[in-house]
Amino acid sequence: MKNFVKFGTALALAAGMSTIAYAQIKPEDAIRARQSIMRVNAINFGPVSAMAQEKIPFNKDIFVANALRLESVWAMNPTRFFVPGSDKPVAGARIAAFTDANGEIWSQPEKFKAAYDKETQEIGKLAAAARSGDEKAMKAAAGDVGKACKACHDDFQVKK
Amino acid sequence: MKNFVKFGTALALAAGMSTIAYAQIKPEDAIRARQSIMRVNAINFGPVSAMAQEKIPFNKDIFVANALRLESVWAMNPTRFFVPGSDKPVAGARIAAFTDANGEIWSQPEKFKAAYDKETQEIGKLAAAARSGDEKAMKAAAGDVGKACKACHDDFQVKK
Repeated sequence: MKNFVKFGTALALAAGMSTIAYAQIKPEDAIRARQSIMRVNAINFGPVSAMAQEKIPFNKDIFVANALRLESVWAMNPTRFFVPGSDKPVAGARIAAFTDANGEIWSQPEKFKAAYDKETQEIGKLAAAARSGDEKAMKAAAGDVGKACKACHDDFQVKK
Repeated sequence: MKNFVKFGTALALAAGMSTIAYAQIKPEDAIRARQSIMRVNAINFGPVSAMAQEKIPFNKDIFVANALRLESVWAMNPTRFFVPGSDKPVAGARIAAFTDANGEIWSQPEKFKAAYDKETQEIGKLAAAARSGDEKAMKAAAGDVGKACKACHDDFQVKK
């Protein structure tokens, strides 16, 4: 619990609530933060995407809840956590044993920002569609979110 | 992207949208899912707790956004991911290199559920306070959430 609050406090300070620079977050904490946010996004978007592609039955309650949660968690802005030094695994860290980020995140920050902004836009449209309750619009918007995900992953993840 | 959707589809199926048993999620995916959810909770609750304890200045917008996001992400129910086989690290997995879960999660499921329900209740009150806009109520509710976090961690995490 103590570490929990300490970590959160450090993040709060880092997020612009003081003069402490964001880069003072430890690289392993930054990697873990961004990977956790993206994993939570995957857990939420996965069923949405599968419904949009009719791989699983459409369930409006789950679709809407997940789409709105995706919007909320995306607003945490995972791109803030690509801090200096977090471009490679951190030796000895318990969890940041890998990163799939490729170097273009740091060498092409404007391109990375554009990809993030595009995703933000598409997720905003998905959330708006979810609020509208229109199944067809929801499924179409989910497809566009998926395309934006893929475009960014294609450009900024190491190839597996 | 393919893995992303595949993972989400598996989760959607596992979450009761088909007859496939939840336990079919791979233990390393379950560990990663619960740790990611809890890390996102920490990122959101950390500043809330620090504001409630007056360790950092109160910022209503951030407090409210984080409290509501905590409610939304908590509704993903991280306790669902304590599946059989996920009580120990998974050899060879890239990220599930550790778990801090102690055995009582599996040996005392009713006690674990009660701790989860208590936290759900306190997070609900925090979100209600955030919606009310009353600073004093928000800070008091954050304290109660922190106590419920601590109680569960004390009982169900290995001691460090």
